[in-house]
Order: sequence, then structure tokens, then C-alpha cells
Amino acid sequence: MLRIYNTLTKEIEQFKPLNPGIVKIYVCGPTVYDKTHIGHVRTYVAFDVVRRYLEFKGYSVFYIVNITDIDDKIIRKSRETGKNWNEIADEYIEDFFKSTDALNIKRAHIYPRVTHHINDIIKFIEKLIDKGYAYEANGNVYFDIDAFEDYGKLSNISKEKLKPQEEGEGKRNPYDFALWKKAKPGEPYWNSPWGPGRPGWHIECSVMSSKYLGQQFDIHGGGQDLIFPHHENEIAQSEACFGVKPWVKYWMHTGMLIMGKEKMSKSIGNIVTVEELLRHYNPMELRYFLISTHYRSQLAYNEEALKHAKSAYSRIANVIKKLKKLAQEVRAYSLESEELKLVRNIIKLRDDFIKAMDDDFNTPKALSIIHKLASIANKKIIPSSNAVAAVMAMQVFREANEVLGLFEELFIEERGREEELINSLVELALAIRQRHRAMKNWEIADWIASELRKLGIELSDSKDKTTWWFKY
Amino acid sequence: MLRIYNTLTKEIEQFKPLNPGIVKIYVCGPTVYDKTHIGHVRTYVAFDVVRRYLEFKGYSVFYIVNITDIDDKIIRKSRETGKNWNEIADEYIEDFFKSTDALNIKRAHIYPRVTHHINDIIKFIEKLIDKGYAYEANGNVYFDIDAFEDYGKLSNISKEKLKPQEEGEGKRNPYDFALWKKAKPGEPYWNSPWGPGRPGWHIECSVMSSKYLGQQFDIHGGGQDLIFPHHENEIAQSEACFGVKPWVKYWMHTGMLIMGKEKMSKSIGNIVTVEELLRHYNPMELRYFLISTHYRSQLAYNEEALKHAKSAYSRIANVIKKLKKLAQEVRAYSLESEELKLVRNIIKLRDDFIKAMDDDFNTPKALSIIHKLASIANKKIIPSSNAVAAVMAMQVFREANEVLGLFEELFIEERGREEELINSLVELALAIRQRHRAMKNWEIADWIASELRKLGIELSDSKDKTTWWFKY
Repeated sequence: MLRIYNTLTKEIEQFKPLNPGIVKIYVCGPTVYDKTHIGHVRTYVAFDVVRRYLEFKGYSVFYIVNITDIDDKIIRKSRETGKNWNEIADEYIEDFFKSTDALNIKRAHIYPRVTHHINDIIKFIEKLIDKGYAYEANGNVYFDIDAFEDYGKLSNISKEKLKPQEEGEGKRNPYDFALWKKAKPGEPYWNSPWGPGRPGWHIECSVMSSKYLGQQFDIHGGGQDLIFPHHENEIAQSEACFGVKPWVKYWMHTGMLIMGKEKMSKSIGNIVTVEELLRHYNPMELRYFLISTHYRSQLAYNEEALKHAKSAYSRIANVIKKLKKLAQEVRAYSLESEELKLVRNIIKLRDDFIKAMDDDFNTPKALSIIHKLASIANKKIIPSSNAVAAVMAMQVFREANEVLGLFEELFIEERGREEELINSLVELALAIRQRHRAMKNWEIADWIASELRKLGIELSDSKDKTTWWFKY
Repeated sequence: MLRIYNTLTKEIEQFKPLNPGIVKIYVCGPTVYDKTHIGHVRTYVAFDVVRRYLEFKGYSVFYIVNITDIDDKIIRKSRETGKNWNEIADEYIEDFFKSTDALNIKRAHIYPRVTHHINDIIKFIEKLIDKGYAYEANGNVYFDIDAFEDYGKLSNISKEKLKPQEEGEGKRNPYDFALWKKAKPGEPYWNSPWGPGRPGWHIECSVMSSKYLGQQFDIHGGGQDLIFPHHENEIAQSEACFGVKPWVKYWMHTGMLIMGKEKMSKSIGNIVTVEELLRHYNPMELRYFLISTHYRSQLAYNEEALKHAKSAYSRIANVIKKLKKLAQEVRAYSLESEELKLVRNIIKLRDDFIKAMDDDFNTPKALSIIHKLASIANKKIIPSSNAVAAVMAMQVFREANEVLGLFEELFIEERGREEELINSLVELALAIRQRHRAMKNWEIADWIASELRKLGIELSDSKDKTTWWFKY
């Protein structure tokens, strides 16, 4: 049963996607004006593990990471170097992929770029203006925070404490933020109904996520430093435009990478690039270092921690190498015990299954091999209650199901669907208990709680809701 | 080593994606004007297995299925029923998902709809006109087949044999096909530079595939009846527009489902709907039936074949149920042999690993469990050369790698990357041999061939190329 800390509710929640079996994820990606550093890739490695684990559990994951290829810093870098802004972007996009590929981060399904979506952005802003959530002023367009009631729910900031988010002419309130920025002389610009300019910092993520994932999706990720104002503003834009709540079901944020006492950040300048680190460590040692701390915790960067990761990683790698050799010997053993024969037979059938599929997806042959395995199970494994062979044969059937999708309901407990049913049943029991509590039927309410506890389900009552979790 | 029959080359080829580790697939989806039938879902089940197997091999798959939500048949149905064309579309899209979900077909990442992409289609057609591959006539736009040299390479059709593809006013040649169709009175239409109308049959697939997958991608799939003219026309449109060759690397086509002597088809009217079949069979029995014949072969639909599938399916399902019970007993056994203790310990660690990940992705804890497994391997498995325990421990490490992505290179032979290297090395050897053949150094050429044969690699020389494959 997967549980996720949700920044939106500030609670650990049972994970339940909006649509059974499908998980849609959007992660805030890089602004491409400098080399990729280790603090930045921490976030991408963390969400790569999230994605891989969801896939392992059988979910169909749709994963998007955006690329900010126009902003103040890119324009500044372009001035400093004399290169065109899009040359700067292309150069650092290449470095980004080099770094993330090296760290074995699976590619996202789409990497949408801001400057390829200017028309979509303009349409989105027009809709916000039409609905009364945004206004034009001197060629700029601002989001009107006073018009959006629900502002601040992610970061728990009160409107009184809102500071000016950025400078800008003609704002109604200093805390309003820019959706469209009028072009300054010499800056790159796109034409719009409000004159030449470019998108503000926040609008791209509302536009590009909904374009590919729809108006609601499951998980939005990013570094903790993006909670305010970036993600808060995304919520305001999207919920104002679509009228859906909540726009995103789970908000997940990674902790900062700390160097000495400060966070590692391009804007502070204390960065260590992935390129530099790869001269001294192999990429898997770096990956080990990055996932050896929980993704929500701060991660302290120092030489010692890296060296520790290096030796911990190689300890496991060495064991795998030895085991692999040993496991391969099963195929070659000439001494025959009945059990080894069976094991070798099962491994052989697994190899045959893969060969059949490799042969232009020969499913009839693959099925015939599965039938052979069934015969062996019927004749040799089940009559003798050979539990070890049973575990191995099950593994081959499990993999066959992964590929052929035929025996889903027999492996359901591993695939998240039964979990969803359990969730719903527990929630039903709690809803019944809640009704009894409301009627002050304390005895029945307590009896329900104690029955749930016997099943390993712990409860914690607060004023208006009950949280629950499994006790391991 | 995966080998795929490629309709484009008419050969079985070693599979090598355009970019290592990533496979982009586009499959022609339904025209939504009637209930989903068993002939249609055969194609979607076949490509679902292709997708699942590629994912099993470790590829990151990006999978798209389009939905044709406007065409003559939808308009006709709309007239017959008095419903709006988009009500018709929505109704049968719902039926499509109901049927494909029931058959355990994993959802595609995107299901782009034609009518949501009219602007993209118009831009694409404008580009074809600009490049001289298309012309306007009386509010229609046609593709000029004479302007595209390479027409016919997928279906091997010669231009002399081309028949009129469809009627239309003002065509230069009867075989030209429509990119944009002028609206007839009372038909739904969109505005365009050529007046009100709607897209032709073929253009949507060129536009929507490139929009999401880029200007080249790996696999294009569909039923064999789409090879000509639909896929031939797609190639003409895309290669003319993008100037890349080949637009798609592998074309894969599924055989027809045959009922009596005819193919099952909505236009012939001899269809059996999935909805109807699900009243008599469980969905996995239908899935078994569909994959029990190779995807390229004709599949004969009849009662007997379905009954056979039903019993074959339940035979395997029963074995899995029994094995599952037996395998679970390993955890509960009270009688202790040293080997059973080890096996139970390994299974316990696998459970613990999953529990740690379920706990808000607790990677540090998951790593500590992997270290425990390494300890057991070092102390108990490796010293005693316990091959059975080694195979099981390897399986847990393999799954841990799937989730954490840490030990990729240790499992590389299962993941397609080593395959790619082998492919490249064989091709290098063949290229060297080819140079010797060109210089008439027959002795060296023959020696290379015989050395390759010793490695299990078979060659077949034709006039200008050598095909090779692994002999199982």
C-alpha cells in the first residue's frame, strides 16, 4: 500500500490515482542557462525513482518535464557571451541530457519547451482575462490575486504576508505576478494581443501540463524552493482557468542539497556540476549518494559522504557479480539432484519464452512454453509440494503476465488494484464510524476502531477528520 | 535479441531504436462511428503485447493511438440518428475504452483526436503546398503524387497500377488524394485558407504523430488493410513535408480477423462486438484467443476457437492458483531446512523492500534492506555455492535495480543495450567482409562468414546486401 507525503494537505496519504491504473506526473525542469549541477539532478533522480516504482507496481505512468528556454537569466547570459538566446538554451539542454542520461534517469515522455508553446500561453492568458482573473497594464498582463479566493493553500501563506513578487508597472497590488511581460529594448519577444513581449515565470507550467495531461492530474513535483511563489501561482492560474479543484492531487517536493550552510544553487554560485563530478566518480556512485537520503530531507554534500556512497555501492555491486556467476552455474551443473533439474528446467523455459518473444513477438510459441511450464508444475512441483520450485515458477508466470497481460487478476495483490479496494473499504468503515460519532454513539464508534486495530489499521482522530495508516 | 518483421523492407530485422533505450510507437486507432468489434481489438491487443514486451526489455516506450472523430461514416451516422456528429464520436469513444480496458490493454500515453488538431493540420497542408507537393482546386486540396518520387515503397505498388483513390473535383491525376475536403451543404466544417471544409482521411496521422513523437519515430502500426492507401499516403505526406527518410523505421501490420471467408469489418457489416462477446466469455479468455495466433497471421473467428481458448486459458490459470498457494506456504513452513530458511529470508527481504518504498519512497531504508541481502549472500549463499538461493537473490536484486536504477550495467544482457552493441559489431564485421568482397578477396570474405557461423550467426547474401540472424 503506497503512501505519499502531500505538500498540499501536509499529510501522508494513501496513494489513489485519479483514474485506476494511470498516473500522470509533471515535474518542474531546468532553466537552461548554465551547466547541470548535483543539487539540481537530485530532484530528477528522486522523481525518476518515484516513476520507476509506480511502473514496478504496474501503473501506466505518463511523465513530463518542462524546459524553460527563455527567461531573464538566459537573456543575461546571452548578453554576456554574445550568443543568441536560443544557442544558449540548446547548449545547456544538451548538457542537461548528458548529465541525466549518465545518472540513468529514464527519459520523460515529453520535454515541452516554453518557446514552442507561446500560442498556447497567449490563449490561456486571454481566458484568465476573460474570466476576470487577470488584467493588462501598459503591455504587461498580471494575475489579480485579490480575484482568486483560494490563494496560499499550498505554502500556507496569508495574503497579509505576501510581499511584492517582482517589480512591474501598473500593478493593482504589489503582490500580483506577471503572466506576460512587455519586451524591453533589445530583448527577444513574441507578438501578442498586448504587444510584443514574453511569458512570465509561472504561466508555462499551467499551460504545458494541462496541454499534455489534461485539466487535472495526479502528481506535480519539484524542489522545495519552488513551493512559493512558483507552485502557489501555478495553482492560482490553473484553478482560476479550469474551475477544477484540486488541480493537482499530490504535490511532492524534494529537499535542498546543502553545501556547508547554504543550499546549492546557480543563483548563489556555489555549484558543483555533474560534469565535474563524473571525472571523479562513476555515475552510479553519484546516484547512490543522491538516493541514500530520503527525498524530502536536506542532503549534505561533502567529500566524505560521496566516498561513503562509493564504497557502499561497490559492496553491493561485488555481491551481485558473484551471485550472478553462481546463478549462471545452475545451467551448467552436471551433478543432478531432482531439485536442481527442476530449477534448471524452469530457467530454461524462461529463456525460451524470451526467445519466442524476441522472434517477431511470437505469442503462440510463447504460450506453448507457458503450457509446458504448467505441465511441469502439475506433474512435478504441485504433487511434491516443492515450495522453492513453486516460488521460481511463479516468478516466470509473473513475468509472462507482465508481457502478455493475461493473468492480471492472479497477481493483483502486487499491482495496486487490491490496494485501492482496501483503501475504499477502510474509508467506508471510517465514514460509518464518523456518522456514529456525529450521533454520539460512542460505543459503536469505539468498537469499529478496535476492530480496525485488530486488522493492523491505526487511527488518529482530529477535529474533523480521521487519519489512518497500516502498522508494520 | 529482438527481431521484427518490417513491412517497409519486407524482411525480419534486428530491432534497433533510433535513440538507445527509447521506443516511440504510433498505432492507427478507431474511427468512432460504431461499437468496437473483435476484429478491431485484435490490432490493439497485438500492439499492447509489443509495447509490454519492449517495456519488459527495459525500453522507455512512448505510445500513441489516434482517434478519428470526423469522417464520412460519422457524418452518415449522425444523419441516420439525428444526433450531432460529436455526440456520435463521444458515444463510441466511450465504448472503445470500455472494450480495450476490459481486455487489459494498457492505456496509450496520448489519444489525440483529429478535431482537436485542425490548426496543426492546416499548417501542415500549407507547408506541403509551399513545397510544391500539394495544390488547391475548388476549395479542396490534393496531394500531387507525381511530385513525390518515392511513392509506393511500402505497398510495392507501381504508379501505373494506381487507381483513383477517391472521387474529387479538379484533381490533376485521378490517383491524387485529398488533404482537405470542401464542405458539402449541411456537413460540419472548419474554416481554412481554402474555405470551409475538413481534413482528408490520411493527413491526421502524419500531423499528430510528428506533433508528439517528432519528425522520425521507431514503429508505426496498424491493420494490414491500412498498408494501401492509408500508410502509403502517410509516408508521402510526411517525407515530402519533413524531407527525412525513412520517416518511420519499422512498419508493423496485423493480420485480418476472418469470419467464414471474409474479413470482419464494420463496412461489410459482419461484426461481432466486444460488448456481445463479454456476455459469454471472460475478457482474459478473449485476450488469450487473440494472442494465440501470431499477430501477422490471419485469425479465424469461430465458436470452436473461442471454446478452445477458454479451456487453454483456464488450464494455466488453475496451475497458477495452486502454485501461488504453494509458494505462499514457504512463508509459513514450520519445518526448517537450511535451504528453506534462506529462501524464506530472501522473500522476507523482498517484502521489506516493497514496504520501504511504499512508505513515501523511503530509499535509504530500501538500500539498507539491499545491504542486508548482500550480507546474507556473502555469508550464506556464496560460501556454500547454493545455486537455488543465488537465483532467487538475483531476482530480488534485479527488481531492486528496476526500481532504483542503480545496477543497470550488471543486468545489461537482459535490457537490450548489450544487444545493440552485438548488432553493431556484427554489422561492422559484415561491412569489412563487404569491402573484401568488393575487392574480390573471396578467401577473407569466406573466412569472416565461417567465423561468424561458428558464433551462431547465419548469413544470407543478396545482390547488394547481406541479411543475418541468430540460429537458435
